[in-house]
Amino acid sequence: MAKQFECALNFSEGKSQQVIRALVQAARGVTVLNVASDPDHNRTVVTYVGSAEATVAAAFQITAKAVELIDMNSHRGAHPRMGAVDVVPFVPLGAATMDEAINCARQLGQRLGDELQIPVYLYEEAASSPQRKNLANVRRGEFEGLGAKLADPLWRPDFGPAHPHPTAGATAVGARIYLVAYNVNLGTSDVAIAQAIARTVRAKTGGLQDVKALGVMIQARNLAQVSMNVVNPFRTPLYRVLETVRMEAKLYGIPVVGSEVVGLIPLSVLLDAARYYLQIEDLTEDRVLESRLWKDKT
Amino acid sequence: MAKQFECALNFSEGKSQQVIRALVQAARGVTVLNVASDPDHNRTVVTYVGSAEATVAAAFQITAKAVELIDMNSHRGAHPRMGAVDVVPFVPLGAATMDEAINCARQLGQRLGDELQIPVYLYEEAASSPQRKNLANVRRGEFEGLGAKLADPLWRPDFGPAHPHPTAGATAVGARIYLVAYNVNLGTSDVAIAQAIARTVRAKTGGLQDVKALGVMIQARNLAQVSMNVVNPFRTPLYRVLETVRMEAKLYGIPVVGSEVVGLIPLSVLLDAARYYLQIEDLTEDRVLESRLWKDKT
Repeated sequence: MAKQFECALNFSEGKSQQVIRALVQAARGVTVLNVASDPDHNRTVVTYVGSAEATVAAAFQITAKAVELIDMNSHRGAHPRMGAVDVVPFVPLGAATMDEAINCARQLGQRLGDELQIPVYLYEEAASSPQRKNLANVRRGEFEGLGAKLADPLWRPDFGPAHPHPTAGATAVGARIYLVAYNVNLGTSDVAIAQAIARTVRAKTGGLQDVKALGVMIQARNLAQVSMNVVNPFRTPLYRVLETVRMEAKLYGIPVVGSEVVGLIPLSVLLDAARYYLQIEDLTEDRVLESRLWKDKT
Repeated sequence: MAKQFECALNFSEGKSQQVIRALVQAARGVTVLNVASDPDHNRTVVTYVGSAEATVAAAFQITAKAVELIDMNSHRGAHPRMGAVDVVPFVPLGAATMDEAINCARQLGQRLGDELQIPVYLYEEAASSPQRKNLANVRRGEFEGLGAKLADPLWRPDFGPAHPHPTAGATAVGARIYLVAYNVNLGTSDVAIAQAIARTVRAKTGGLQDVKALGVMIQARNLAQVSMNVVNPFRTPLYRVLETVRMEAKLYGIPVVGSEVVGLIPLSVLLDAARYYLQIEDLTEDRVLESRLWKDKT
């Protein structure tokens, strides 16, 4: 089987089902895992997987369709954005490497610039300079500020013209590690406790380097939650995140009542948990029965 | 993808690499996962997976080759045996059902009887009567006692002639649940402690219904081990087995230093552990990224 990549393409339409459907259907030759639209953000994230060639081709096809159907001059939404297709991260899966994901980003950037005349900034692992690594920096000024930004010698695009596409703006294309959105539910309705725990576990305020965290209230269940992104779940396994939250919750005499992973769970998360809690020695992916069954049949 | 079955075929040759290789190579159209030969037992277990049709066909092909190459009249070995191909269990995997595995056993039995004139006993889940469920009962008397056994009206074969095949004897064909061989290593070199713990966790002496257990000494690591078979790891998850061993080990002030699964680990074991220890809610196989990647490509 060809090496697999995930692509979580963000485009600037979260209301019109007709436009959303047309863009998602433009992705051929890949497996669409999820489509998440937010009307307030007026934005959709379509997540799909496939080979390097297929994920790049699908991103190009979606962008070509977005150039037809989305005009950024009339776009309004709560989320920062600078283009019809706003952000395209490539994520290496399984045996695929970060270098190969960076290569996907560069290939797509080249095609968007050359064939669609869209200026492209490479970001995160694909960034061409340190100040372009952080997506927030790349996107600062948004669609409305693009003309000035692209004219700044410091912000020449990595591909495409040094002026915005008249309707599609600009696109950030990058490569990053698979991240896991992980939420831990607490046996309390006091959101202040979740917020205090979030501060102890997240990188920004002294916690774990790979964790971003917020304390939030889940009204429907009347419980407080530590809502997290684990930006490198391979270096920082979920058991460490959970046990750190549990450790801090003890300060308040509060139990952990459950946890949830938003989206798909990498097998490595399950293997790490089995190594840690079941103490299984020499546990690797190829020891899992289903990995042999499924892979051997491809 | 067609439903998958595992077959762990036992044949009566554990020394001659030439014979072993010829028999394993007779299995076409399936994925061979493991070949384990024991010279003292003079016996080999070949484990393979495939569709119902393929696993049955491969078992027939191996048996036809065994009729050519193995003569039970000159076979000696420590392990009880009654045939050139001695035991053939079919195990349903994933979405496959026990009824379908039983069907595989019956189809193979029919073909071995009709086409190779080998008497066949169905055992375990495929057994035609309660006294044939237990393989030890079916095999009692071994190859040398087969003539008398097959002539006994209580022990008429389920397929094939009521007399032994002159060189290949008889074959037991069955269906069973996937079992997991699970060993827990203790932080002690006192094998008596492992034996005492084994008695508390196994069904035979009052423990868990699905657990068989022995206390053994692992000389190479100078530690005592509780060596177990979990005969229904879907009903009795490994976390329950491990935590029960750990609970008993505390009586002696002994820690669990590690564990091991012999062979392949069903994904359900990892999912059960993540549900229990990581407390992930709503965790199912289709939430695992790799299950989507691998399956979607087949």
